[in-house]
Amino acid sequence: MPVVRFQPANVVADVPSGTPIHIAALRAGILDLELPCGGEGACGLCQVEVVGLDAPVLACKTSVTSDMVVRLPDRSQTAARVLGDSHALIDPALLPGHDSLTPLYRDLRITVPPASIEEHYSDWTRLIRELDRNRSAVSITSQLPVLRQLAEALRAADGQVTVGVEDSASGLFVRDLRPGHSPARALGLAVDIGTTTVAAQLVDLDDGSVLTTETAYNKQIRRGADVISRIDYARSPERLEELRGLVLETINSLIELLANAIPVDPREIRAAFLAGNTTMTHLALGLPPRYIRESPYVPTVNSVPELRAREVGLNIDPQAIVAFAPGVGSYVGGDITSGVLCTDLSTGNRDVFLFMDIGTNGEIVIGNTDWMVACACSAGPAFEGAGIKCGMRAAEGAIERVAIGDDGEQLEYSVIHGGKPAGICGSGLISLLGELFRQGVVDRSGRFFKSPGAGRIVEHQGRRAFLLASAGQSRNGKDLVITEADIENLIRTKAAIYAACSLVLENVGLAWDSIARVYIAGGFGRYMRVADAVFIGMLPDLPLDHFRYIGNSSLTGAYIALLSRAHRRRMAEIAARITYVDMSSNPHYMDSYVKAMFLPHTDLEQFPTVAETFERRGRNAP
Amino acid sequence: MPVVRFQPANVVADVPSGTPIHIAALRAGILDLELPCGGEGACGLCQVEVVGLDAPVLACKTSVTSDMVVRLPDRSQTAARVLGDSHALIDPALLPGHDSLTPLYRDLRITVPPASIEEHYSDWTRLIRELDRNRSAVSITSQLPVLRQLAEALRAADGQVTVGVEDSASGLFVRDLRPGHSPARALGLAVDIGTTTVAAQLVDLDDGSVLTTETAYNKQIRRGADVISRIDYARSPERLEELRGLVLETINSLIELLANAIPVDPREIRAAFLAGNTTMTHLALGLPPRYIRESPYVPTVNSVPELRAREVGLNIDPQAIVAFAPGVGSYVGGDITSGVLCTDLSTGNRDVFLFMDIGTNGEIVIGNTDWMVACACSAGPAFEGAGIKCGMRAAEGAIERVAIGDDGEQLEYSVIHGGKPAGICGSGLISLLGELFRQGVVDRSGRFFKSPGAGRIVEHQGRRAFLLASAGQSRNGKDLVITEADIENLIRTKAAIYAACSLVLENVGLAWDSIARVYIAGGFGRYMRVADAVFIGMLPDLPLDHFRYIGNSSLTGAYIALLSRAHRRRMAEIAARITYVDMSSNPHYMDSYVKAMFLPHTDLEQFPTVAETFERRGRNAP
Repeated sequence: MPVVRFQPANVVADVPSGTPIHIAALRAGILDLELPCGGEGACGLCQVEVVGLDAPVLACKTSVTSDMVVRLPDRSQTAARVLGDSHALIDPALLPGHDSLTPLYRDLRITVPPASIEEHYSDWTRLIRELDRNRSAVSITSQLPVLRQLAEALRAADGQVTVGVEDSASGLFVRDLRPGHSPARALGLAVDIGTTTVAAQLVDLDDGSVLTTETAYNKQIRRGADVISRIDYARSPERLEELRGLVLETINSLIELLANAIPVDPREIRAAFLAGNTTMTHLALGLPPRYIRESPYVPTVNSVPELRAREVGLNIDPQAIVAFAPGVGSYVGGDITSGVLCTDLSTGNRDVFLFMDIGTNGEIVIGNTDWMVACACSAGPAFEGAGIKCGMRAAEGAIERVAIGDDGEQLEYSVIHGGKPAGICGSGLISLLGELFRQGVVDRSGRFFKSPGAGRIVEHQGRRAFLLASAGQSRNGKDLVITEADIENLIRTKAAIYAACSLVLENVGLAWDSIARVYIAGGFGRYMRVADAVFIGMLPDLPLDHFRYIGNSSLTGAYIALLSRAHRRRMAEIAARITYVDMSSNPHYMDSYVKAMFLPHTDLEQFPTVAETFERRGRNAP
Repeated sequence: MPVVRFQPANVVADVPSGTPIHIAALRAGILDLELPCGGEGACGLCQVEVVGLDAPVLACKTSVTSDMVVRLPDRSQTAARVLGDSHALIDPALLPGHDSLTPLYRDLRITVPPASIEEHYSDWTRLIRELDRNRSAVSITSQLPVLRQLAEALRAADGQVTVGVEDSASGLFVRDLRPGHSPARALGLAVDIGTTTVAAQLVDLDDGSVLTTETAYNKQIRRGADVISRIDYARSPERLEELRGLVLETINSLIELLANAIPVDPREIRAAFLAGNTTMTHLALGLPPRYIRESPYVPTVNSVPELRAREVGLNIDPQAIVAFAPGVGSYVGGDITSGVLCTDLSTGNRDVFLFMDIGTNGEIVIGNTDWMVACACSAGPAFEGAGIKCGMRAAEGAIERVAIGDDGEQLEYSVIHGGKPAGICGSGLISLLGELFRQGVVDRSGRFFKSPGAGRIVEHQGRRAFLLASAGQSRNGKDLVITEADIENLIRTKAAIYAACSLVLENVGLAWDSIARVYIAGGFGRYMRVADAVFIGMLPDLPLDHFRYIGNSSLTGAYIALLSRAHRRRMAEIAARITYVDMSSNPHYMDSYVKAMFLPHTDLEQFPTVAETFERRGRNAP
């Protein structure tokens, strides 16, 4: 078998001759060679260089015939290095510059000039003049231990000191002071508290680099799959405290993983920036969430004031400053504000964009620099692998892409990190549903055409199911199947998302073609092919180059805000400018939702390229 | 003996016929009937009403001949009520209005409107909109327990809540929240940390009233009488910690006294405002003071950031906010800034004023709304009773005024709270020195004319002394004397003060007659007659109505700043605007000081009224 070596990651894969390069890349563990058009050769975004060839080729359309060396674009390499690092996915112009970081906490290495008879400012005054040279801080405060060391520290190393400074919303706070220029790096934490998945990132606050990223299921899942069931569960103070404890356990276990990976002492983490939906934020802080779901649906707080790690319960430096992404309302939280920070809006692009964060809840923002409208829909946790028979998160062992032969039986799939499959993740489910529909295995309402025994159709607990892998082929020795119930679940989810988008657009009087860019956020989207999602009618049928996958933008936004005062302010402005529209009270919503409960939609005219695919293949949509 | 009843205090005194009313008032315990002109009948400020007479009379010039009822002006009555309460001494226009208090901490009783579908602001947003109706706060923060109670508290009593709010330099901080309108009053503490005496005041933060005031010697005295000796003592960290402990013991014992007097739990004190000279502030905070007295003489900090009672070590609510009056430099501290807040400067008067704070250190400020120059002189603790054989603080048992007959032997004195004398306080010493000089007992250099055995001259430990009270007449059964060494000490003190004033004036190119008002601050001045102080050459020979005694203005300023945000800002402006001039490096200082080492001064032309007194009495100055 030919050997393909991928540079600059310097990883290899043995693949059968004729395998497309993008599949070979997956086998080599390169997980994010993006194929926005679904491998149709349409978008040209999967360009790679093959050493020895003059011109770049498309990874989706070029097959491996002999040993070769493939050079991938830098972005893929960066992203491959750290699984779950979404920052490489967003426009680098959106990230704070490394030279001008103003993190929530930083160690400033400064030199304070000595006093003289002419300039006899106090030690403190000379220090703050150096800390805030352009006098932009509203106030500069400190604590007693710092003041007690100040005189000697300033005189110990010719005025050279390392000053630990918090850049809080109310001004600068000098937390720490050491003589000399300390080489130790200051650490920070960015966290996305998702309803299903929690992601955390350890950040070097000196240069802004991501040291490592970890994700885990939110342990609250055992008390309810979605925010509504958790709000209901949290009615008593004891149960609220239980849920608070569960999500803190989750975050603290991630902190332990992050710290062990370097390794560092987690108490060296001096600042944390957290983004989550409004309910997750309330539960993490122990704020009673009941009024979120009782009319008039107001949370305790949208813009949580900065707190200390000790009071929040994070196992980092107890004195660490903990800030939160500000939310818009009960159903559009800080995760969305954080995500919008990762769009071109932030660089002043005035075109209309559609931002979709598809997690357990789907949230949608449409707007530009002048106006923004947001809504929420209960997508459910299907795309995060919950509520699906063989569903799992996008982690090692998950089937993340599927191809079904024209006979509806032949099956190929790729597994994250290779080996036998353990389950199927969100992108795999979308890919699978698209393939089942494309190859005529299911009808437009998601029902199997054939009976158990025919092809891969089997009976599973009294209902029909599609066999993905038999017991012998799977990691845990059990059949991997997708049942009709799973498919109904997926269709409900995709319908909720599409219906919400349609309705917000209608609400602001715009048509689909006024959207210049669609940002897809959410952890599962990493492996999702946009073409698959359009094919099942989850995403609108717009030109594929309009779509941009920005990964876990809640986490990326938290990372950006952790590092930059200007971005923290911009986030607050975004939260203030977004208008929330309530879908549940909109009389047209149910109508719109029911119409979207088909593959791809009742109205095929809304999906011209899907109709065209079937025409090109010489048959009608099933 | 006739009985005099004083109203509205309703106290009585039996006095021999012919006793002036102001002496009768002293006997009745009325301690602050002011006699700025020294009982010469010149200023007219001791006007009282005698029931039955048509016109008011002067207390200093009217004698008691039969039983009478005397009505005192209100101010005296107020001040008599609370010993040590200086607020009654300053212009009421300088105090913050009771309707517009913005104390460091307050319990705001507000009603937060409910949310509606149209106005679905979060609970926190609705709360802060009510807290800060004119949107003037830079930032509003809080802590987790408040947020956790918020939803239920707002819904428990139709939106009525009592909110404990800190008004810090960096914005508002919501510390506490209770449903309903709580009747409990919030308490605050104002403290003047003097080198010799510490004064503390318990304040009702709801209405600004002073609940009680207490003073005590600073326990650091045992480690040095003045700031220089304490700085020297504090060279090692252990000794610095010892001095910190001693002054905190002093303050905490005052807090206990204040709390027991009401009684209240001292942990109900939510805010404290402290004023002290720069060394006292450093020692109270455990900041090493050595660089205060090493060139170029810079303190660690002039404007101490706001701290918490826990870190400072005050035995009040551990979370209480503790603010400090900002200082100007090493030798002009927060006590002076605090004092200047009690002058007409604060109401925009543009006349040139002279502010003198005469404690262990003398500090002088000359200026107006446009410019201010300050200097310091080491007056020494003589006027606070320290370093003087029979000296004591102005407390019960202290001789506070003396009259010597023309024969130089007959002696009358008044004792604070009456009874046998225990010692002599600052105003008593000034009065005594003036009388010794006036009646020809001492010469212009302070030496006794006569030898021991003649009149009241006795020998005391090998030096000549003046007998104030014999063992049988004194409270402790010992002779009360003033020695020649004491008199030298007093003359050095008064000379240091006068020389510093002269020199600052010279420095800014002004003559004595450009001074429109002289503010005398400092605890001992309460009982001091300005005329006495002019007579010995401590104060300049200006018209008596130019002088205004404003009491412990460091404490009063701390009280004002505790209660008003505008005044806290004004205090910071005052500190920023004062220019410090260093006396010790001025080549003319010693010259000026030596000239002032006589009674009243080498240059009698600077004291025309003193010269005139001797002329009127038909003899030259001795």
